[in-house]
Amino acid sequence: MSKVFVNIGLSLDGYMAPEGMSIENWDRPDYKNWGAKWGTLMSWILKQQYFRESLKFGPGGETGPVNDMLRNTMERSGAGIMGKRMFDAGERSWPEEAPFHTPVYVLTHEKREPWVRPGGTTFHFFNDGPASALEKARESAGGRDIRISGGADVIQQYLNMGVIDELEIALAPVLFGSGRRLFENLHEAVPQFRVDKVLNTPDATHLRYVRA
Amino acid sequence: MSKVFVNIGLSLDGYMAPEGMSIENWDRPDYKNWGAKWGTLMSWILKQQYFRESLKFGPGGETGPVNDMLRNTMERSGAGIMGKRMFDAGERSWPEEAPFHTPVYVLTHEKREPWVRPGGTTFHFFNDGPASALEKARESAGGRDIRISGGADVIQQYLNMGVIDELEIALAPVLFGSGRRLFENLHEAVPQFRVDKVLNTPDATHLRYVRA
Repeated sequence: MSKVFVNIGLSLDGYMAPEGMSIENWDRPDYKNWGAKWGTLMSWILKQQYFRESLKFGPGGETGPVNDMLRNTMERSGAGIMGKRMFDAGERSWPEEAPFHTPVYVLTHEKREPWVRPGGTTFHFFNDGPASALEKARESAGGRDIRISGGADVIQQYLNMGVIDELEIALAPVLFGSGRRLFENLHEAVPQFRVDKVLNTPDATHLRYVRA
Repeated sequence: MSKVFVNIGLSLDGYMAPEGMSIENWDRPDYKNWGAKWGTLMSWILKQQYFRESLKFGPGGETGPVNDMLRNTMERSGAGIMGKRMFDAGERSWPEEAPFHTPVYVLTHEKREPWVRPGGTTFHFFNDGPASALEKARESAGGRDIRISGGADVIQQYLNMGVIDELEIALAPVLFGSGRRLFENLHEAVPQFRVDKVLNTPDATHLRYVRA
Protein backbone atom coordinates (compact mmCIF):
# COMPACT_ATOMS: atom_id res chain seq x y z
CA MET A 1 0.00 0.00 0.00
CA SER A 2 1.15 3.51 -0.78
CA LYS A 3 2.80 5.47 2.01
CA VAL A 4 1.88 9.10 2.50
CA PHE A 5 4.91 11.28 3.09
CA VAL A 6 6.03 14.83 3.58
CA ASN A 7 9.46 16.00 2.45
CA ILE A 8 10.18 19.64 3.08
CA GLY A 9 12.77 22.23 4.04
CA LEU A 10 12.38 23.93 7.40
CA SER A 11 14.22 26.78 9.09
CA LEU A 12 15.66 26.08 12.53
CA ASP A 13 12.90 28.21 14.02
CA GLY A 14 10.21 26.17 12.33
CA TYR A 15 9.21 28.11 9.22
CA MET A 16 8.57 26.58 5.82
CA ALA A 17 8.64 29.99 4.16
CA PRO A 18 9.91 33.38 5.31
CA GLU A 19 7.55 36.29 5.83
CA GLY A 20 7.01 38.23 2.61
CA MET A 21 7.41 35.23 0.32
CA SER A 22 4.10 35.32 -1.50
CA ILE A 23 2.92 35.57 -5.05
CA GLU A 24 2.42 39.35 -4.71
CA ASN A 25 6.11 39.79 -3.92
CA TRP A 26 7.44 37.19 -6.34
CA ASP A 27 9.37 39.77 -8.32
CA ARG A 28 10.62 41.55 -5.20
CA PRO A 29 12.86 39.04 -3.42
CA ASP A 30 14.34 41.95 -1.45
CA TYR A 31 10.93 42.50 0.18
CA LYS A 32 11.56 41.61 3.85
CA ASN A 33 14.64 39.89 2.49
CA TRP A 34 12.58 36.81 1.62
CA GLY A 35 14.70 35.83 -1.37
CA ALA A 36 17.95 35.58 0.57
CA LYS A 37 16.25 33.71 3.40
CA TRP A 38 14.66 31.24 1.01
CA GLY A 39 18.01 30.79 -0.70
CA THR A 40 19.65 29.85 2.58
CA LEU A 41 16.88 27.37 3.34
CA MET A 42 17.28 25.76 -0.05
CA SER A 43 21.06 25.98 -0.47
CA TRP A 44 21.49 22.24 0.21
CA ILE A 45 19.17 21.18 -2.61
CA LEU A 46 20.57 23.58 -5.22
CA LYS A 47 23.92 21.79 -4.96
CA GLN A 48 22.60 18.32 -5.71
CA GLN A 49 23.22 16.77 -9.11
CA TYR A 50 19.79 15.15 -9.27
CA PHE A 51 18.00 18.41 -8.52
CA ARG A 52 20.08 20.38 -11.01
CA GLU A 53 19.41 17.82 -13.70
CA SER A 54 15.72 17.63 -12.85
CA LEU A 55 15.23 21.39 -13.09
CA LYS A 56 17.58 21.70 -16.08
CA PHE A 57 20.03 23.88 -14.14
CA GLY A 58 22.92 22.33 -16.04
CA PRO A 59 25.50 19.64 -15.35
CA GLY A 60 27.54 19.04 -12.21
CA GLY A 61 26.51 18.92 -8.58
CA GLU A 62 27.00 16.66 -5.59
CA THR A 63 26.39 12.94 -5.95
CA GLY A 64 26.61 11.73 -2.35
CA PRO A 65 23.98 10.36 0.07
CA VAL A 66 21.86 13.54 -0.03
CA ASN A 67 21.64 13.25 -3.79
CA ASP A 68 20.64 9.59 -3.45
CA MET A 69 17.95 10.62 -0.99
CA LEU A 70 16.58 13.15 -3.48
CA ARG A 71 16.49 10.60 -6.27
CA ASN A 72 14.75 8.12 -4.00
CA THR A 73 12.13 10.73 -3.06
CA MET A 74 11.34 11.31 -6.71
CA GLU A 75 11.38 7.66 -7.71
CA ARG A 76 9.08 6.52 -4.90
CA SER A 77 6.46 9.16 -5.71
CA GLY A 78 3.41 8.05 -7.68
CA ALA A 79 1.25 11.11 -7.01
CA GLY A 80 1.42 14.44 -5.26
CA ILE A 81 -0.89 16.82 -3.43
CA MET A 82 -0.34 20.52 -2.94
CA GLY A 83 -2.17 23.70 -1.97
CA LYS A 84 -3.19 26.42 -4.37
CA ARG A 85 -0.70 28.97 -3.08
CA MET A 86 2.19 26.58 -3.64
CA PHE A 87 0.89 25.80 -7.11
CA ASP A 88 0.57 29.50 -7.96
CA ALA A 89 4.19 30.11 -7.00
CA GLY A 90 5.32 27.01 -8.88
CA GLU A 91 3.37 27.92 -11.98
CA ARG A 92 5.62 30.96 -12.20
CA SER A 93 8.83 29.16 -11.28
CA TRP A 94 8.91 25.62 -12.61
CA PRO A 95 10.44 24.94 -16.00
CA GLU A 96 8.04 23.78 -18.71
CA GLU A 97 8.81 20.21 -17.68
CA ALA A 98 7.52 20.57 -14.12
CA PRO A 99 9.63 18.49 -11.72
CA PHE A 100 7.04 15.97 -10.51
CA HIS A 101 6.52 13.47 -13.36
CA THR A 102 3.29 12.22 -11.74
CA PRO A 103 -0.28 13.40 -11.32
CA VAL A 104 -0.45 16.26 -8.83
CA TYR A 105 -3.70 17.17 -7.09
CA VAL A 106 -4.01 20.86 -6.35
CA LEU A 107 -6.44 21.66 -3.52
CA THR A 108 -8.42 24.67 -4.64
CA HIS A 109 -11.87 26.14 -4.97
CA GLU A 110 -11.06 27.19 -8.51
CA LYS A 111 -12.48 25.14 -11.40
CA ARG A 112 -9.91 24.50 -14.07
CA GLU A 113 -9.19 21.81 -16.65
CA PRO A 114 -6.19 19.53 -15.92
CA TRP A 115 -2.91 21.14 -16.93
CA VAL A 116 -0.72 18.63 -18.73
CA ARG A 117 3.02 19.34 -18.73
CA PRO A 118 5.69 17.61 -20.80
CA GLY A 119 7.58 14.96 -18.80
CA GLY A 120 4.60 13.30 -17.16
CA THR A 121 3.30 15.91 -14.71
CA THR A 122 -0.43 16.64 -14.87
CA PHE A 123 -1.98 19.09 -12.42
CA HIS A 124 -5.56 18.26 -11.45
CA PHE A 125 -7.51 21.07 -9.82
CA PHE A 126 -9.49 19.46 -7.08
CA ASN A 127 -12.47 20.97 -5.32
CA ASP A 128 -13.63 18.16 -3.03
CA GLY A 129 -11.34 18.62 -0.06
CA PRO A 130 -8.21 16.89 1.21
CA ALA A 131 -9.65 13.47 2.10
CA SER A 132 -11.10 13.00 -1.34
CA ALA A 133 -7.89 14.26 -2.98
CA LEU A 134 -5.93 11.65 -1.04
CA GLU A 135 -8.27 8.93 -2.33
CA LYS A 136 -7.75 10.09 -5.91
CA ALA A 137 -3.99 10.24 -5.33
CA ARG A 138 -4.00 6.67 -3.99
CA GLU A 139 -5.90 5.47 -7.04
CA SER A 140 -3.48 7.06 -9.45
CA ALA A 141 -0.23 6.34 -7.57
CA GLY A 142 -0.07 2.75 -8.84
CA GLY A 143 1.23 1.45 -5.52
CA ARG A 144 3.96 4.05 -5.32
CA ASP A 145 3.94 6.64 -2.55
CA ILE A 146 2.03 9.89 -2.21
CA ARG A 147 3.84 13.09 -1.50
CA ILE A 148 2.12 15.90 0.36
CA SER A 149 4.19 18.76 -1.02
CA GLY A 150 2.84 21.68 1.02
CA GLY A 151 2.24 24.41 1.92
CA ALA A 152 2.19 24.36 5.67
CA ASP A 153 -1.60 24.55 5.92
CA VAL A 154 -2.05 21.54 3.65
CA ILE A 155 0.46 19.49 5.65
CA GLN A 156 -1.32 20.52 8.86
CA GLN A 157 -4.63 19.29 7.50
CA TYR A 158 -3.20 15.89 6.63
CA LEU A 159 -1.34 15.64 9.96
CA ASN A 160 -4.63 16.29 11.74
CA MET A 161 -6.33 13.65 9.59
CA GLY A 162 -3.74 11.19 10.90
CA VAL A 163 -2.73 9.94 7.47
CA ILE A 164 0.92 11.03 7.28
CA ASP A 165 3.17 7.97 7.52
CA GLU A 166 6.54 9.66 7.13
CA LEU A 167 7.83 13.12 7.84
CA GLU A 168 11.10 14.09 6.18
CA ILE A 169 12.51 17.45 7.20
CA ALA A 170 15.63 19.18 5.90
CA LEU A 171 16.34 21.42 8.89
CA ALA A 172 18.49 24.32 7.74
CA PRO A 173 20.61 26.24 10.26
CA VAL A 174 18.89 29.55 9.60
CA LEU A 175 16.54 31.63 11.74
CA PHE A 176 13.79 33.41 9.80
CA GLY A 177 12.18 35.18 12.75
CA SER A 178 8.79 35.10 11.05
CA GLY A 179 6.95 33.39 8.21
CA ARG A 180 4.70 30.39 7.74
CA ARG A 181 5.16 27.81 10.48
CA LEU A 182 4.98 24.12 9.72
CA PHE A 183 3.79 23.02 13.14
CA GLU A 184 0.72 25.04 13.96
CA ASN A 185 -3.01 24.42 14.25
CA LEU A 186 -2.43 20.81 15.26
CA HIS A 187 -5.16 19.01 17.18
CA GLU A 188 -4.53 17.56 20.58
CA ALA A 189 -4.47 13.97 19.31
CA VAL A 190 -1.92 14.51 16.56
CA PRO A 191 -0.15 11.27 15.64
CA GLN A 192 3.27 10.62 17.08
CA PHE A 193 6.44 9.78 15.22
CA ARG A 194 9.77 8.16 15.94
CA VAL A 195 13.18 9.08 14.54
CA ASP A 196 14.04 6.73 11.73
CA LYS A 197 17.22 8.24 10.34
CA VAL A 198 19.33 11.39 10.51
CA LEU A 199 21.82 12.55 7.91
CA ASN A 200 23.79 15.65 8.81
CA THR A 201 25.50 18.04 6.42
CA PRO A 202 26.72 21.63 6.90
CA ASP A 203 23.76 22.96 4.85
CA ALA A 204 20.95 21.00 6.49
CA THR A 205 20.23 18.24 8.95
CA HIS A 206 18.05 15.68 7.21
CA LEU A 207 15.62 14.26 9.74
CA ARG A 208 13.42 11.34 8.85
CA TYR A 209 10.49 10.43 11.12
CA VAL A 210 8.04 7.56 10.71
CA ARG A 211 4.77 6.90 12.54
CA ALA A 212 5.39 5.54 16.03
CA MET B 1 36.67 34.18 27.45
CA SER B 2 33.50 32.51 28.62
CA LYS B 3 31.09 31.23 26.00
CA VAL B 4 27.38 31.79 26.47
CA PHE B 5 25.38 28.70 25.69
CA VAL B 6 21.88 27.28 25.69
CA ASN B 7 21.26 23.58 26.24
CA ILE B 8 17.62 22.56 26.21
CA GLY B 9 15.08 19.94 25.24
CA LEU B 10 12.65 20.79 22.45
CA SER B 11 9.64 19.01 21.00
CA LEU B 12 9.67 18.37 17.27
CA ASP B 13 7.06 21.09 16.91
CA GLY B 14 9.24 23.61 18.68
CA TYR B 15 7.96 23.74 22.26
CA MET B 16 10.16 23.87 25.34
CA ALA B 17 7.23 23.04 27.60
CA PRO B 18 3.76 21.63 26.91
CA GLU B 19 0.65 23.68 27.53
CA GLY B 20 -0.57 23.33 31.11
CA MET B 21 2.90 22.84 32.61
CA SER B 22 2.96 25.67 35.10
CA ILE B 23 3.42 26.08 38.80
CA GLU B 24 -0.36 26.18 39.35
CA ASN B 25 -0.68 22.70 37.87
CA TRP B 26 2.48 21.23 39.34
CA ASP B 27 0.55 18.65 41.35
CA ARG B 28 -1.77 17.84 38.44
CA PRO B 29 0.44 16.32 35.73
CA ASP B 30 -2.72 14.95 34.11
CA TYR B 31 -3.88 18.51 33.41
CA LYS B 32 -3.78 18.76 29.61
CA ASN B 33 -1.57 15.70 29.89
CA TRP B 34 1.47 17.89 30.54
CA GLY B 35 3.23 15.33 32.72
CA ALA B 36 3.29 12.61 30.09
CA LYS B 37 4.35 15.06 27.40
CA TRP B 38 7.16 16.42 29.52
CA GLY B 39 8.23 12.87 30.33
CA THR B 40 8.53 12.04 26.64
CA LEU B 41 10.56 15.19 26.02
CA MET B 42 12.91 14.30 28.86
CA SER B 43 13.08 10.53 28.45
CA TRP B 44 16.56 10.69 26.97
CA ILE B 45 18.06 12.50 29.94
CA LEU B 46 16.42 10.35 32.60
CA LYS B 47 18.34 7.35 31.27
CA GLN B 48 21.78 8.89 31.57
CA GLN B 49 24.09 7.80 34.36
CA TYR B 50 25.43 11.31 34.95
CA PHE B 51 21.98 12.81 35.28
CA ARG B 52 20.79 10.04 37.61
CA GLU B 53 23.82 10.47 39.80
CA SER B 54 23.55 14.23 39.76
CA LEU B 55 19.91 14.20 40.86
CA LYS B 56 20.44 11.28 43.26
CA PHE B 57 18.08 9.03 41.31
CA GLY B 58 20.23 6.03 42.18
CA PRO B 59 22.86 3.98 40.38
CA GLY B 60 22.86 2.70 36.82
CA GLY B 61 22.14 4.45 33.55
CA GLU B 62 23.69 4.83 30.14
CA THR B 63 27.35 5.82 29.87
CA GLY B 64 27.72 6.48 26.12
CA PRO B 65 28.32 9.66 24.13
CA VAL B 66 25.11 11.33 25.33
CA ASN B 67 26.22 10.83 28.91
CA ASP B 68 29.64 12.30 28.07
CA MET B 69 27.89 15.29 26.53
CA LEU B 70 25.86 15.82 29.71
CA ARG B 71 28.95 15.65 31.89
CA ASN B 72 30.72 18.10 29.60
CA THR B 73 27.80 20.52 29.82
CA MET B 74 27.98 20.47 33.59
CA GLU B 75 31.75 20.67 33.82
CA ARG B 76 32.08 23.60 31.41
CA SER B 77 29.49 25.68 33.29
CA GLY B 78 30.80 28.37 35.60
CA ALA B 79 27.53 30.23 36.08
CA GLY B 80 23.89 30.02 35.06
CA ILE B 81 21.02 32.36 34.30
CA MET B 82 17.34 31.48 34.46
CA GLY B 83 13.91 33.05 34.58
CA LYS B 84 11.72 33.26 37.64
CA ARG B 85 9.14 30.78 36.39
CA MET B 86 11.81 28.16 35.79
CA PHE B 87 13.23 28.81 39.24
CA ASP B 88 9.80 28.50 40.88
CA ALA B 89 9.27 25.11 39.27
CA GLY B 90 12.78 24.01 40.16
CA GLU B 91 12.45 25.16 43.75
CA ARG B 92 9.70 22.57 44.10
CA SER B 93 11.48 19.86 42.13
CA TRP B 94 15.23 19.93 42.66
CA PRO B 95 16.76 17.83 45.41
CA GLU B 96 18.31 19.76 48.31
CA GLU B 97 21.59 19.65 46.43
CA ALA B 98 20.37 21.59 43.38
CA PRO B 99 22.00 20.25 40.21
CA PHE B 100 24.00 23.32 39.12
CA HIS B 101 27.01 23.57 41.45
CA THR B 102 27.64 27.17 40.36
CA PRO B 103 26.15 30.61 41.00
CA VAL B 104 22.78 30.90 39.24
CA TYR B 105 21.29 34.32 38.49
CA VAL B 106 17.49 34.32 38.60
CA LEU B 107 15.93 37.16 36.60
CA THR B 108 13.09 38.48 38.71
CA HIS B 109 11.47 41.60 40.10
CA GLU B 110 11.32 39.98 43.52
CA LYS B 111 13.85 41.04 46.16
CA ARG B 112 15.27 38.06 48.02
CA GLU B 113 18.52 37.17 49.76
CA PRO B 114 20.77 34.68 47.95
CA TRP B 115 19.68 31.10 48.50
CA VAL B 116 22.69 28.90 49.23
CA ARG B 117 22.29 25.19 48.56
CA PRO B 118 24.61 22.37 49.55
CA GLY B 119 26.86 21.24 46.70
CA GLY B 120 27.90 24.69 45.47
CA THR B 121 24.72 26.13 43.94
CA THR B 122 23.78 29.62 45.07
CA PHE B 123 20.74 31.34 43.57
CA HIS B 124 21.06 35.11 43.27
CA PHE B 125 17.82 37.00 42.71
CA PHE B 126 18.63 39.66 40.22
CA ASN B 127 16.55 42.73 39.52
CA ASP B 128 18.67 44.66 37.03
CA GLY B 129 17.75 42.98 33.77
CA PRO B 130 19.37 40.39 31.52
CA ALA B 131 22.40 42.39 30.31
CA SER B 132 23.50 43.16 33.82
CA ALA B 133 22.88 39.55 34.92
CA LEU B 134 25.12 38.36 32.11
CA GLU B 135 27.88 40.69 33.32
CA LYS B 136 27.59 39.32 36.83
CA ALA B 137 27.60 35.78 35.49
CA ARG B 138 30.77 36.49 33.50
CA GLU B 139 32.48 37.85 36.58
CA SER B 140 31.63 34.83 38.66
CA ALA B 141 32.17 32.13 36.00
CA GLY B 142 35.94 32.15 36.45
CA GLY B 143 36.57 31.73 32.73
CA ARG B 144 34.20 28.79 32.46
CA ASP B 145 31.06 29.06 30.34
CA ILE B 146 27.68 30.60 31.09
CA ARG B 147 24.55 28.60 30.66
CA ILE B 148 21.26 30.30 29.82
CA SER B 149 18.95 27.67 31.26
CA GLY B 150 15.56 29.05 30.23
CA GLY B 151 12.68 29.46 30.02
CA ALA B 152 11.87 30.29 26.46
CA ASP B 153 11.35 34.00 27.11
CA VAL B 154 14.76 34.34 28.76
CA ILE B 155 16.49 32.56 25.88
CA GLN B 156 14.65 34.80 23.41
CA GLN B 157 15.91 37.90 25.21
CA TYR B 158 19.51 36.73 25.03
CA LEU B 159 19.16 35.65 21.41
CA ASN B 160 17.88 39.12 20.56
CA MET B 161 20.80 40.66 22.46
CA GLY B 162 23.08 38.70 20.13
CA VAL B 163 25.13 37.17 22.93
CA ILE B 164 24.39 33.45 22.52
CA ASP B 165 27.47 31.68 21.16
CA GLU B 166 26.16 28.13 21.14
CA LEU B 167 22.73 26.60 20.87
CA GLU B 168 22.40 22.96 21.92
CA ILE B 169 19.01 21.39 21.31
CA ALA B 170 17.85 17.90 22.20
CA LEU B 171 15.06 17.55 19.64
CA ALA B 172 12.66 14.88 20.85
CA PRO B 173 10.37 13.09 18.37
CA VAL B 174 7.19 14.23 20.05
CA LEU B 175 4.52 16.69 18.95
CA PHE B 176 3.01 18.77 21.78
CA GLY B 177 0.52 20.71 19.66
CA SER B 178 0.73 23.68 22.05
CA GLY B 179 2.87 25.10 24.80
CA ARG B 180 5.74 27.55 25.15
CA ARG B 181 7.66 27.95 21.93
CA LEU B 182 11.43 28.42 21.95
CA PHE B 183 11.64 30.41 18.72
CA GLU B 184 9.26 33.31 19.02
CA ASN B 185 9.52 37.08 19.44
CA LEU B 186 12.86 37.16 17.64
CA HIS B 187 13.97 40.40 16.06
CA GLU B 188 14.69 40.64 12.39
CA ALA B 189 18.47 40.78 12.85
CA VAL B 190 18.72 37.68 15.00
CA PRO B 191 22.23 36.17 14.82
CA GLN B 192 22.78 33.21 12.57
CA PHE B 193 24.24 29.84 13.47
CA ARG B 194 25.89 26.93 11.71
CA VAL B 195 25.55 23.24 12.48
CA ASP B 196 28.55 22.13 14.49
CA LYS B 197 27.61 18.56 15.41
CA VAL B 198 24.66 16.17 15.42
CA LEU B 199 24.32 13.08 17.58
CA ASN B 200 21.25 10.99 16.90
CA THR B 201 19.57 8.54 19.28
CA PRO B 202 16.06 7.05 19.28
CA ASP B 203 15.02 9.33 22.16
CA ALA B 204 16.34 12.62 20.83
CA THR B 205 18.45 14.15 18.08
CA HIS B 206 21.15 16.24 19.72
CA LEU B 207 21.78 19.28 17.55
CA ARG B 208 24.66 21.59 18.32
CA TYR B 209 24.82 25.00 16.61
CA VAL B 210 27.52 27.64 16.97
CA ARG B 211 27.51 31.27 15.81
CA ALA B 212 28.09 31.52 12.09
